[in-house]
Amino acid sequence: MISKNVITYVQSLQQKKARQKYQCFVAEGNKLVAELGDSDWEFEALYVKESFAPAHKSLIAKYQHCIQIVSDMEMERLSGLQTPQDALAVVRMKTNKSTSPKGWTLVLDGVQDPGNMGTLIRSAAWFGFSQIVCSLDTVELYNPKVIQGSMGAFATMPIHYTDLANYLSLQKLEIYAAVLDGKPLRKTTFSKEGILVLGNEGNGIRPEILRLVSNGITIEKAKDSKVESLNVAVAAAILMNAVTQAIN
Amino acid sequence: MISKNVITYVQSLQQKKARQKYQCFVAEGNKLVAELGDSDWEFEALYVKESFAPAHKSLIAKYQHCIQIVSDMEMERLSGLQTPQDALAVVRMKTNKSTSPKGWTLVLDGVQDPGNMGTLIRSAAWFGFSQIVCSLDTVELYNPKVIQGSMGAFATMPIHYTDLANYLSLQKLEIYAAVLDGKPLRKTTFSKEGILVLGNEGNGIRPEILRLVSNGITIEKAKDSKVESLNVAVAAAILMNAVTQAIN
Repeated sequence: MISKNVITYVQSLQQKKARQKYQCFVAEGNKLVAELGDSDWEFEALYVKESFAPAHKSLIAKYQHCIQIVSDMEMERLSGLQTPQDALAVVRMKTNKSTSPKGWTLVLDGVQDPGNMGTLIRSAAWFGFSQIVCSLDTVELYNPKVIQGSMGAFATMPIHYTDLANYLSLQKLEIYAAVLDGKPLRKTTFSKEGILVLGNEGNGIRPEILRLVSNGITIEKAKDSKVESLNVAVAAAILMNAVTQAIN
Repeated sequence: MISKNVITYVQSLQQKKARQKYQCFVAEGNKLVAELGDSDWEFEALYVKESFAPAHKSLIAKYQHCIQIVSDMEMERLSGLQTPQDALAVVRMKTNKSTSPKGWTLVLDGVQDPGNMGTLIRSAAWFGFSQIVCSLDTVELYNPKVIQGSMGAFATMPIHYTDLANYLSLQKLEIYAAVLDGKPLRKTTFSKEGILVLGNEGNGIRPEILRLVSNGITIEKAKDSKVESLNVAVAAAILMNAVTQAIN
């Protein structure tokens, strides 16, 4: 049986304030928990239903010191998902090691929607981008919707939060960005390594960041289309795909 | 003052059952409501805060018979959004006129997530696709998250729900689909008109639909990427962009 305090604690990690206080976050789902448990992320606690055990014996052995078998009803109370699965881990945050960029870096200037952020991480990992650098006001990586939406890709992708204007002004690589009035994508050539900047859902890229961009790119729309913009995760993926196709 | 019955009715339209019963749905937001009000969609009711009126005089005149000014608190009760805006319309569904495809058709086989559906509609409109045809189990167009997520693109895009296997078997155009083991995108050539099929988030395209596909396309991932798939709205947009670039 799980104590009320534990349930309150795990539930509290749905909130940013508690995550920052305890430096922990929640990851849910059989596949995600199994992947994370097998990586260098550390679990503070692992809650599983009995049905989870048979197929995950080595994971269960590894986390014997902090594992707890829970009932369906307990999992429902611990979970932040509409349809709880069989495993939920409380995971320790990692310190944000800054790396010097090799290959391509995705830069996010104020992306707000956690669903978009999760999709951006997943696409960046798919296309082999080496890291993601975010403005300080970009949605938090450890938001449960980011964690679940990235489909495990957050576990291996280096993701940093920093003062973007300062960061970009120190880089020597070409800086590309998705804008509404740039060069058409089909006429853009990409360097072997580089930086790709995407902006906020409503407002795009801030002027002080845009000033540091050398290549503004526009994804062309159909002549008679009245749509004003593409979703940020969609635009990013189209450009990351173009980068990958150009440099390989 | 708005009656309790009206609030209950508008709130009920957040649920599919009530939408089907009353053949109405909710559209929110100053921009979306203004766009819809100016199109051939019909409003059953229009609720606006006083602040909305000055900038939208012709809209207010047009809907004088069904408009009601509401307080901040009333709008909060009517709204399904976390941050209600100044206008909310109850809109009549339209009958699903079937058209013969010209240009490119996007086909969705069991897409479930309303956020993905909204993004798919937005991208299809951006790239000038002429219609969207959905399997009967695809998420409902009038789901509030689809309506809000499409950023108004649902208003002009013909969207049909039908028996997909039957529909596709009657088409004479080339049928392309996003699959995990197809021909690389960069080696794919597209016909001037065609059909592009995307599948369910977890399970992809059903075997009976896949059997009707002539060209399976794969968006290549980086060599060392461990990500298993791309988000469906992301994959669709990359392919729609490729189609647009190829045929223009």
